[in-house]
Amino acid sequence: MDRFLGSKRSHGILLIEGEELNHLFAKRLKAGQELEVFVEGKLYLCTLEKLSRSYASCLIKREIENPTPLPMINLYQCVPVELKNMDLIVEKVSEVGAFKLTPVISDRSFQSKGVIEKKLERWKRIALASFKQCRRPKPLDIDQPIHLKDIRADAQLNLFLDSFEKERSIKDLNLNGIKTINLVVGPEGGFTSQESEFLKSLGFLPIRLYPYILRSETASILGVGLLMNLSILSLPTYQE
Amino acid sequence: MDRFLGSKRSHGILLIEGEELNHLFAKRLKAGQELEVFVEGKLYLCTLEKLSRSYASCLIKREIENPTPLPMINLYQCVPVELKNMDLIVEKVSEVGAFKLTPVISDRSFQSKGVIEKKLERWKRIALASFKQCRRPKPLDIDQPIHLKDIRADAQLNLFLDSFEKERSIKDLNLNGIKTINLVVGPEGGFTSQESEFLKSLGFLPIRLYPYILRSETASILGVGLLMNLSILSLPTYQE
Repeated sequence: MDRFLGSKRSHGILLIEGEELNHLFAKRLKAGQELEVFVEGKLYLCTLEKLSRSYASCLIKREIENPTPLPMINLYQCVPVELKNMDLIVEKVSEVGAFKLTPVISDRSFQSKGVIEKKLERWKRIALASFKQCRRPKPLDIDQPIHLKDIRADAQLNLFLDSFEKERSIKDLNLNGIKTINLVVGPEGGFTSQESEFLKSLGFLPIRLYPYILRSETASILGVGLLMNLSILSLPTYQE
Repeated sequence: MDRFLGSKRSHGILLIEGEELNHLFAKRLKAGQELEVFVEGKLYLCTLEKLSRSYASCLIKREIENPTPLPMINLYQCVPVELKNMDLIVEKVSEVGAFKLTPVISDRSFQSKGVIEKKLERWKRIALASFKQCRRPKPLDIDQPIHLKDIRADAQLNLFLDSFEKERSIKDLNLNGIKTINLVVGPEGGFTSQESEFLKSLGFLPIRLYPYILRSETASILGVGLLMNLSILSLPTYQE
């Protein structure tokens, strides 16, 4: 079923306007057909009621409440110096199942917090586009940027990827029953040894991915995807 | 250690020229330093002997013979209609450990074999750039395009990804001792039901990835990366 972003909600009616309306025309939807509309943080199953040049009105049939797959993975992504790589990271970690992405400033990351803050709206738009396409129950949440020193190991499992670490691989993780994971991924060039020690002192476990040295964005995609696919394996109720 | 592509081999000497020479200057390597040079399908540990404006000559110390990580994964990638997406697929599946990539023409893929053939040189260049960066023992092999009907289930494990399939997930696979895997990934929109039935009749097993509907390029990256990381888990000798 097609999924659209609504612009307004008024009682039982949702409106689709602007670019999303063009998208709806392109999909050739007709009055009476069902569609999904996301508005004000909620997803609704609707019937297309009226289609005009300036808006489409949709009648809410019911709210769709899909559970978020577990574990909820919070990706702490050191922002690549090549800032445009974040576009790919946002799109892909949304698809592979991250719950939230927090941009992080570390020694070798992109440095300007102000520039990162200006990009947040762009990244949220990319996350919304991915949400429509990959059928997540909620869009990837994109948080305000933080400095590495302000990270907290506040999940049930706290990990950081480091291709220079050989201590721990993903097979050493016990994912049974884990519902929240923090995953910290370094920038191109990785963490400094001080940063690595700092993360360990906070309680983050270093892990590595096989078999080669991955670019930062590949590490994020594969790291989140692996944790999600392996965790879901250990949460059999989700399989049903 | 830095890795470069050589242009010629003559007895115990390798030459680096052209664009690779510029790369070597950019890395500020000096005579006497060690480097890795890939030429004529082999990788050598060398000492930089002489550096001039038109070439660098390198003295071979020894051939580097790293074993290729097992399993050897042959990715049969249906070519996306948005042909430029193949650039990302080539770069990323090289990093996550595919052994060979064969472009495939299917009902919903890009259709022109001639155009695909013209792109092979570009994709091989991308594979070489990735090889230098991710420290694979050999570059990703890129084969001539084939039609889906000519695929053979000639590996120990033969799989195809299909997000509409729910029969089999990656947890159902017994990867113990598997040394060769064929993985077929569909184009945007997936396989037709006839294609899916055809692949099953050949002996390919459908599997799906969790948790969402992945774009074709994401499915390839995560599919290869998962198989590689999970297989290596079941081949403990590789951990050493």
